[in-house]
Amino acid sequence: MRTTVGIIGAGPAGLLLARLLHNAGIDSVVLESRDRSYVEHRQRAGILEQGTVDVLRAAGAGERLDREGLRHDGIELRFAKQRHRVDFPRLTGGRSVTVYAQTEVCKDLIALQLKEGGPLLFEAEALAVEGAESERPLIRFRHEGRESVLECDYVAGCDGFWGVARAAFPEPLSRVFERTYPYAWLGILADVAPSHDELVYARHERGFALLSMRSPSVSRLYLQVPAGTDAEDWTDEAIWDELERRFETDDDWRLERGPITQKSVTPMRSYVHEPMRHGRLLLAGDAAHIVPPTGAKGLNLAVGDVVTLARALVHEKETGSPELLDAYSATCLRRVWQAERFSYDMTSMLHPGPGDTPFDARLQLARLGRIASSRAAETDLAEAYTGFPLDA
Amino acid sequence: MRTTVGIIGAGPAGLLLARLLHNAGIDSVVLESRDRSYVEHRQRAGILEQGTVDVLRAAGAGERLDREGLRHDGIELRFAKQRHRVDFPRLTGGRSVTVYAQTEVCKDLIALQLKEGGPLLFEAEALAVEGAESERPLIRFRHEGRESVLECDYVAGCDGFWGVARAAFPEPLSRVFERTYPYAWLGILADVAPSHDELVYARHERGFALLSMRSPSVSRLYLQVPAGTDAEDWTDEAIWDELERRFETDDDWRLERGPITQKSVTPMRSYVHEPMRHGRLLLAGDAAHIVPPTGAKGLNLAVGDVVTLARALVHEKETGSPELLDAYSATCLRRVWQAERFSYDMTSMLHPGPGDTPFDARLQLARLGRIASSRAAETDLAEAYTGFPLDA
Repeated sequence: MRTTVGIIGAGPAGLLLARLLHNAGIDSVVLESRDRSYVEHRQRAGILEQGTVDVLRAAGAGERLDREGLRHDGIELRFAKQRHRVDFPRLTGGRSVTVYAQTEVCKDLIALQLKEGGPLLFEAEALAVEGAESERPLIRFRHEGRESVLECDYVAGCDGFWGVARAAFPEPLSRVFERTYPYAWLGILADVAPSHDELVYARHERGFALLSMRSPSVSRLYLQVPAGTDAEDWTDEAIWDELERRFETDDDWRLERGPITQKSVTPMRSYVHEPMRHGRLLLAGDAAHIVPPTGAKGLNLAVGDVVTLARALVHEKETGSPELLDAYSATCLRRVWQAERFSYDMTSMLHPGPGDTPFDARLQLARLGRIASSRAAETDLAEAYTGFPLDA
Repeated sequence: MRTTVGIIGAGPAGLLLARLLHNAGIDSVVLESRDRSYVEHRQRAGILEQGTVDVLRAAGAGERLDREGLRHDGIELRFAKQRHRVDFPRLTGGRSVTVYAQTEVCKDLIALQLKEGGPLLFEAEALAVEGAESERPLIRFRHEGRESVLECDYVAGCDGFWGVARAAFPEPLSRVFERTYPYAWLGILADVAPSHDELVYARHERGFALLSMRSPSVSRLYLQVPAGTDAEDWTDEAIWDELERRFETDDDWRLERGPITQKSVTPMRSYVHEPMRHGRLLLAGDAAHIVPPTGAKGLNLAVGDVVTLARALVHEKETGSPELLDAYSATCLRRVWQAERFSYDMTSMLHPGPGDTPFDARLQLARLGRIASSRAAETDLAEAYTGFPLDA
């Protein structure tokens, strides 16, 4: 079996890359270790930057997104019982974000791929990438009980943090940058209309809380919990009680409760692997970098990577020049590090840590106070939240 | 001996307060434990915010400052061999800072006080503040070998971090917020023209360095060193060699060397004491808060405090209302915490710490890269550097 671009992983990175390549007349094969239902239902991010929406639309994957996505023109920061709204379009010259779950992006892209695109194999587990430095790299994989080989011109490692693609980088080449956090997010889905029409990021001395949504009738809520917490240790009532405490205001805002349909714990990690390219193997998305979810940057960074990658592959095909492929890693990493910085800053501004001193607590409040009182500081946040330029 | 306002400490806070009160017809006595020569020669800060210059001018202490102060319209950030200038007036609607050493501010204010003001006693060591909660607080002090008492309507504790005023706050009332840093600054004065006409803040993997100046012919330079370093451990040649390494650029900029006339080590600390008022005792400047020197905020915060304090005392005298005195602590602390935040951020952006990970190093570079590429982030820095509003 052979193809031009072998793509490992049918998450948003791999699926969008396949779509962008298909639209440019470059053939690819996507290998996904899980089954279709798993991919279409694992809960992940839900905030699409303006640029991500534009890319999905231009790729022909914007139809349901335009119908069902919820455009958000701001977020609320809540601290010391006060509420401060950050107005994105006013601060960024018109930019906004769209609430549309990653699962839905995946469903849309899978449907398109199966209808119009190249092969997309589910339950096809990549085992190893070989010959990245050669002209003909290959992916060894297991599918329907047999081991097979996919020969490629290029391999795109879109197989996430736990994938095999990164392991094909020789050790002396790899540099890893990492930070773990002593807390995690306990996330729930609940069948109740969101209690606020925009996301609410709450910094409370008891811990961070986030109010988000999946649709006008489904709420998505998060609580900061100690790292290693088991979601089952929290009863539904305890979750709602704690959310209510952390979202407290000095006005009559109220948190509406409803049946919890899912709960899970998300660990928090910052991680970057440099470089993102080794020969003809190119990493994209979580395979190369992880951000804590506070800045809503993970999915958007993956989209940025594959847009850059597709452009570089098309450029190489059309001109024969590897120039953009050679620049791929550096181009992505500039944006990646800005997103890492922003995600770290949002995280550390909003989460009281177990070892924090009273000075640290005051510092968090001073940061929030600064954003609430300086247009420059608020603009800095709004620009980063709505998205760094896809090619910078 | 009695007065309306007993002022402990003849640093810039105490001296300026005496001057502002004198101008408003309120009498005061200043007690300073050191002799005049010491006060006039201890090397401290050298950057005056726009607002500080305005206050000194309005107080009648601006004559020599206007003649000898060096107006600076920007600073340079240097990192990864690159140079980025932050243009203050362009970003802040015309604000700038002035290089004029704290020693010179003190000389000017001492001369004015001795010529026109109330008593200023040198070598008068305050021993304790008593009766802060009463109508008649007093300061016990030792002068010319005898213990005396200064009876006051109000006591202003302008006696710095090691002073006695703060000790008069009853323990249950006091809240202390503190952070120490594992590094310090080795500072030198050198008889050589500054190698750049504005301050240069250099982040280098070997450590932070700062190029500053006292006059067109005297350079003031700093090196990040481990906390606890003895200045005598560094030869003059080693200092210049290390400065040269940390200020490296990819152009032909050169550091000029000259005779070093003074060297000393400044520890780094963040500290806030809340509240800043107890009854009729009011703290101002370093007696209530310390910032690491990176943001050049220490002297300017002290000026902010005493402007607020003088205004409150004048308001009380003119209207009989203690309203502004009651608000004194909260009014100052809003500005103080913004300066603490900014000083902490500048410090941690520019100083590689001994326990830093490669992730932390990349984060520092991403922060600097953000400032160099986003007008919003750059404006945020420029606003904070040139000064927070004196009354906010």
